[in-house]
Amino acid sequence: MSSTPSPQVPPSSSAPGTVRPGGRTARTRAAVRDAVLAGLVEYGYPGLTVEYVAEQSGVHKTTLYRRWGGVEGLVADALDLAGEDTWTPPDTGTLRGDLRALAQQVVDTFGDPAAGAAPAAFIAAAFQSERAAEALRAFYAERFARCAPLVERAAARGEVPAGTDPGSLARAVSAPLFFRLFITREPLDDTVAGQAADAALAAARAGVFASPA
Amino acid sequence: MSSTPSPQVPPSSSAPGTVRPGGRTARTRAAVRDAVLAGLVEYGYPGLTVEYVAEQSGVHKTTLYRRWGGVEGLVADALDLAGEDTWTPPDTGTLRGDLRALAQQVVDTFGDPAAGAAPAAFIAAAFQSERAAEALRAFYAERFARCAPLVERAAARGEVPAGTDPGSLARAVSAPLFFRLFITREPLDDTVAGQAADAALAAARAGVFASPA
Repeated sequence: MSSTPSPQVPPSSSAPGTVRPGGRTARTRAAVRDAVLAGLVEYGYPGLTVEYVAEQSGVHKTTLYRRWGGVEGLVADALDLAGEDTWTPPDTGTLRGDLRALAQQVVDTFGDPAAGAAPAAFIAAAFQSERAAEALRAFYAERFARCAPLVERAAARGEVPAGTDPGSLARAVSAPLFFRLFITREPLDDTVAGQAADAALAAARAGVFASPA
Repeated sequence: MSSTPSPQVPPSSSAPGTVRPGGRTARTRAAVRDAVLAGLVEYGYPGLTVEYVAEQSGVHKTTLYRRWGGVEGLVADALDLAGEDTWTPPDTGTLRGDLRALAQQVVDTFGDPAAGAAPAAFIAAAFQSERAAEALRAFYAERFARCAPLVERAAARGEVPAGTDPGSLARAVSAPLFFRLFITREPLDDTVAGQAADAALAAARAGVFASPA
């Protein structure tokens, strides 16, 4: 995703098009991101310090303050960078298969402590930092927008009404799973994932996510 | 709800049946709960201290440590106490009306800073305290169990298949709203609430929440 511009993150490091892959700027940013993730996972947002990020990344504290402004800017940029991946939604041939695969990805991510720790830490940080919350909002908005082709394919196959909103459908699949993970603190399993996908599918078929004609 | 028994919370204060309403024990517990909520809302879990709760509640620090063990026990008991209310699910005469009223309650609660601050603080605390997470899990499990009559009435009216699980349906209404509030950090409004209710209704009608016959 394109990063949220901010005074603390100059375009040279935050706009993907202007960073040479593998260049010094990109390497620095990735090293800093790794240090931020490690710190968030280990200490949480309240315990994360610029000193820790400097020590872990090998980037001088003065540089961190100058380019990222402080802990809030570091966390927001790490999240921006997380959104610059090449993830695309599943394409299994049926909407039901695609939605079940989407739900399974959430279950698999959070079922793996190594994979789930960073997203959980970002979600926790957003409770304490408005900039982290903004970065999270941008991350998810962009992520759900990537699901448009999935819904277009389904509409073309006649599986959902034309005009079904991809973002609403994608959110509907994820919501019950994140709700259990971070609100009701209940376990996830494949049955829960399947039910989340089927519930979203039933709602989509019924036209709940279609804009009024 | 009945409180989670724990060494730090003796039955005399945590089991509702054994506390005389208005008695000294109940008054102390409520004063402590109010102080915990105020501290959570103002400073968040990382900033909450037994000293603060003592000062705000007028209950001696030694008593707080003896009866609640520390900050974790205080937060868990405040949440237990929050579950001891008399909330019952809406009864509007139709399942659609009931589900829309449920969703609207969430929107209204979190649209009111005074009402929404404490639940949000508990949800945040659960990221940092396993005991808070357990108390939250118990709180929601009991809350959703209270929705059984709502679903029984709907099944009796033929609005959903017999065997529809009340907990799954109630979770389905709430999940998209909490997802926006605390994960994707997107605003809630009446349209979003209506869509959450209608999506849960469509899924329930399609039998997604019915146990396999």
